[in-house]
Amino acid sequence: MLSVMDIQAELKEQIQLRIYRFLEEKQQQANEIGEELAPILYEIRHLLSGGKRFRPYCMFLGMQAASERPLAEVFSQYPLLREQALTLGAALECFHAAALVHDDIIDRSETRRGRSSVHYSFTQMHQERKWRGSASHFGLSAAVLVGDLLQFWADELFSCALTDSEEASILCQRVYPHIHRMRTEVAYGQYFDTLEEQHTHFAEYSVQLERTTRILLYKTAKYTVEAPLLIGASLLGASPTLLEALSEFAIPAGVAFQLRDDLLGVFGDPKITGKPAGDDLITGKRTVLTALTRKSLSDSQRQLFDELLGTDLSAEQVRMLQKTMIESGAQNELERMIQRNMLRAQQKGRHVEISAHATEPLVALATQLAHRNS
Amino acid sequence: MLSVMDIQAELKEQIQLRIYRFLEEKQQQANEIGEELAPILYEIRHLLSGGKRFRPYCMFLGMQAASERPLAEVFSQYPLLREQALTLGAALECFHAAALVHDDIIDRSETRRGRSSVHYSFTQMHQERKWRGSASHFGLSAAVLVGDLLQFWADELFSCALTDSEEASILCQRVYPHIHRMRTEVAYGQYFDTLEEQHTHFAEYSVQLERTTRILLYKTAKYTVEAPLLIGASLLGASPTLLEALSEFAIPAGVAFQLRDDLLGVFGDPKITGKPAGDDLITGKRTVLTALTRKSLSDSQRQLFDELLGTDLSAEQVRMLQKTMIESGAQNELERMIQRNMLRAQQKGRHVEISAHATEPLVALATQLAHRNS
Repeated sequence: MLSVMDIQAELKEQIQLRIYRFLEEKQQQANEIGEELAPILYEIRHLLSGGKRFRPYCMFLGMQAASERPLAEVFSQYPLLREQALTLGAALECFHAAALVHDDIIDRSETRRGRSSVHYSFTQMHQERKWRGSASHFGLSAAVLVGDLLQFWADELFSCALTDSEEASILCQRVYPHIHRMRTEVAYGQYFDTLEEQHTHFAEYSVQLERTTRILLYKTAKYTVEAPLLIGASLLGASPTLLEALSEFAIPAGVAFQLRDDLLGVFGDPKITGKPAGDDLITGKRTVLTALTRKSLSDSQRQLFDELLGTDLSAEQVRMLQKTMIESGAQNELERMIQRNMLRAQQKGRHVEISAHATEPLVALATQLAHRNS
Repeated sequence: MLSVMDIQAELKEQIQLRIYRFLEEKQQQANEIGEELAPILYEIRHLLSGGKRFRPYCMFLGMQAASERPLAEVFSQYPLLREQALTLGAALECFHAAALVHDDIIDRSETRRGRSSVHYSFTQMHQERKWRGSASHFGLSAAVLVGDLLQFWADELFSCALTDSEEASILCQRVYPHIHRMRTEVAYGQYFDTLEEQHTHFAEYSVQLERTTRILLYKTAKYTVEAPLLIGASLLGASPTLLEALSEFAIPAGVAFQLRDDLLGVFGDPKITGKPAGDDLITGKRTVLTALTRKSLSDSQRQLFDELLGTDLSAEQVRMLQKTMIESGAQNELERMIQRNMLRAQQKGRHVEISAHATEPLVALATQLAHRNS
């Protein structure tokens, strides 16, 4: 009998196939409309190739949490359910790709997964073809539209997964609320994040911590962990108690994930993270780690810290700020916070309502999120 | 018995109520998450207030075309159907608002319906609050997210309209394909339009006409007229023959609508259109009208025309270009094209498959689209 872990391995391939099948249809339709659409499909295909398929995996875990029998067994009895789950997984990936395209516009990122980001790709196309007007505005415009298309296609996959059966009405009532909430909340989270960058100064510690926590809650914990789990569990008709138990697992697990990200953004090995050393220090990201550091500094130290953060730091200055974060005790405190959140998630993952077949993978997931190195 | 025309009058109010009810929920949810979300909800409420509700009206016409009995009679027998139709109408308006927000980014429009466009509103907010960094990039970022939210909410309304009944599976199979096609095609149309603006020169006449026609087909005719008609008709289970008849009505009617827009963009009365005299000449829009004009000019005239088009023209220069368009015969030829398309639409509107109750309003709609003055 296949375990959820085995499903994870198989899942990547299956989701990829589902995505390619969907894109094949879109490609054919686009070919009929006009060859100028080719670069759009090309970019989308790249965005949707590879990746960890983390959200579909969480969705499958949510399904397992709601099923007393191993998921593989359920799937072999109900092949349609397996198809629906794969389509939902493909939809989550499509939605995530849409979010990345628009995020890269907002963050002015020129790269994504080692390639040009979508807006930068179209900017380069404009430059190469020596078109008229602003290359970067063309890149931006095209990327707004590519992100929109991906949102439409995600939605097409969501509706296809949920409505292609006689149970459509029940499935939609169960699952759509979680999809709707996920989309609205991640947009709000992204807005909070954007807003944070406009503030000239750090707020007083408790206010700053509250704002930073809200961003990581909406942009990461709820979106990346909670929503996929709830979508999966609700697909199998999870009880409100089970959904709540999964939320109580997901939030601390997601928080641990993001706090680890804070540490990797400052102390991560560039060879493993693929980002420059001290990247978050150079971009001046306001994280829980920076908030903790600032709290423990004297007024004059804090002033110096604020002046350096978010500037074009030398390697020497990066090392100095890293040292400040260690010596202030902030790094240790963050490690303890990660540990606390991981343990809390693991405890919640053992909730009596959660299927025994899901407990072990959920506990392992919490460890993985808290202790990843890239 | 209420006619479709009476329904049009009542429709505006009903759609507005439906939209406000939906936004009220969103407002409450947003209040709980954070007061910083207030400007987002404020902008969205404005965008979704008023307007002609043209697309919902077309959708109702599509429903009438598929019903042998007057729609009002059907609604009083099936109140749930009326609710579904109003929710679908609200979804179309929400989707359209999303498209406008992203279009205004792409077109760099600072105004929309006499107010600041969404990105410009957020730019102004940044300036007023003296935040750090680029005000215009903040405005752009916020508007990308506001457009995304409106897309999510449109989708929420679409799914709510189609899945909240025992017939969910059938309704979704009938209606969703038209919704999916509409969204993808309008994004493609917008991309073609954006692409057109990057070309340094006009193409040879037939190529240029083909490209321009494709833009007006995807961006206007299919999106504004065909899609809402098909969505409405399919909701009532229209036959493939009826759907085809409605498409054959919609395309020429939509083409007439857009060609009239070309004329209004050059010859429209600023007091009525709300745009500067000769607006399209100043922005250098490549319309069917400009393509026809260029075809009839001598090489030297055409060169002068091309040099002036899309520059900061004086009132005198605008009048000169208008005169060129009249004397070249292009204006007359366009009027004849509008007339031909209108008559063709009206002929198709009398198709035997279309309910007698819809014929008159469809014919009137074609006249209205071809002969509006704003």
